[in-house]
Amino acid sequence: MDFKILEVKEQVLADNDRIAAETRKTLKQRGVLLVNLMGSPGAGKTSALLQLITRLRDTLRIGVMEADVDSDVDARAVAEAGARVVQLHTGGLCHMDAAMTARGLEALGPEDLDLVFLENVGNLVCPAEFDVGADLRMMILSVPEGDDKPLKYPQMFTVSDWMLVNKIDAAPVFDFDLETASQRARALNPNIEIFPVSALNGAGFDTLAARLRRLRAERRASR
Amino acid sequence: MDFKILEVKEQVLADNDRIAAETRKTLKQRGVLLVNLMGSPGAGKTSALLQLITRLRDTLRIGVMEADVDSDVDARAVAEAGARVVQLHTGGLCHMDAAMTARGLEALGPEDLDLVFLENVGNLVCPAEFDVGADLRMMILSVPEGDDKPLKYPQMFTVSDWMLVNKIDAAPVFDFDLETASQRARALNPNIEIFPVSALNGAGFDTLAARLRRLRAERRASR
Repeated sequence: MDFKILEVKEQVLADNDRIAAETRKTLKQRGVLLVNLMGSPGAGKTSALLQLITRLRDTLRIGVMEADVDSDVDARAVAEAGARVVQLHTGGLCHMDAAMTARGLEALGPEDLDLVFLENVGNLVCPAEFDVGADLRMMILSVPEGDDKPLKYPQMFTVSDWMLVNKIDAAPVFDFDLETASQRARALNPNIEIFPVSALNGAGFDTLAARLRRLRAERRASR
Repeated sequence: MDFKILEVKEQVLADNDRIAAETRKTLKQRGVLLVNLMGSPGAGKTSALLQLITRLRDTLRIGVMEADVDSDVDARAVAEAGARVVQLHTGGLCHMDAAMTARGLEALGPEDLDLVFLENVGNLVCPAEFDVGADLRMMILSVPEGDDKPLKYPQMFTVSDWMLVNKIDAAPVFDFDLETASQRARALNPNIEIFPVSALNGAGFDTLAARLRRLRAERRASR
């Protein structure tokens, strides 16, 4: 009994990658840097964003796409911090894909922006699979989640450019070993850059803000 | 602080519905009847399919798209029963959408078929949200799952045309009340047709096969 086997997910991802490549190209032409911010619920994505916006808003025009299942709490806080915000309701979907991101960008109007963040749906699995067209994938692992997360959710660590280790001030309380977490992440992705931060007290965010400012300048220069 | 709110999921579903409508139109022109078979893992989707194929294979040319996360066990059994089969690997995706279904149909080659089943991914939630272009949505609730499932997963019962209550022979053992389950399903969807069946001993499948044969004849007549 013969039958064909179709890998439909690969086709879904291929379609997604095509749209993501278009987004990347368009943003590059416009000199806009897009950052895909990912992490579990409660890892501190919004708090990290607020720390970055505070440090960058005077020199860069910032847009934020807030992807949430159905609330707009984060969008409100981010808008108050001084970014242009679009709230994206995924209605239960566990990730943003390239087509949804392209629509969010259209609604945001990136023409007069320098830096756009997509705050992805709080989830350590699905968002890792979908390229949304970002120039930088920034994931947050928070200390209370444990230093074993790279072993359990390897894909997220494999695809990310930057790994923020948030709530680093709480490391002793949670028996979290930064060196162990870093080794495990680097075993999956030797190029991953690791930044211990605290979105609570702001530690580490000056460095990150400076890096983002430089990336954005390079992006503009390479147009 | 003002910001736009975008319902991205609604847009995803709108795109999906457009593709589903195209599929439905094409299949109608060709006189092919497409059935979307849904239900939890273990509800008896493949066994029900085998019962139907055995009864219909002498009069109808049957195709089956077997959607599975990554196995091909079901595809093998169905091919041996005498249907033309395509195995669709969703790679972890919890449902089939209209675009994936259209690709599966293309691989199956529906031109010389009368009746095509899509055996959807075993899941009582996600598949209910995506119209794949089927003429008939057939869901299976099995007795061991309990007669409260329409309360817990209303969407599946709301969108289905037929509800097969499988493993009906085991109803006394599981304290499953068919009348209660039926009332709960009809409260959500007054038009749902309910068929108690047993894919184990074949009870109820003559009726179902006759209904499918008639639907297919009407489909051909209305071309």
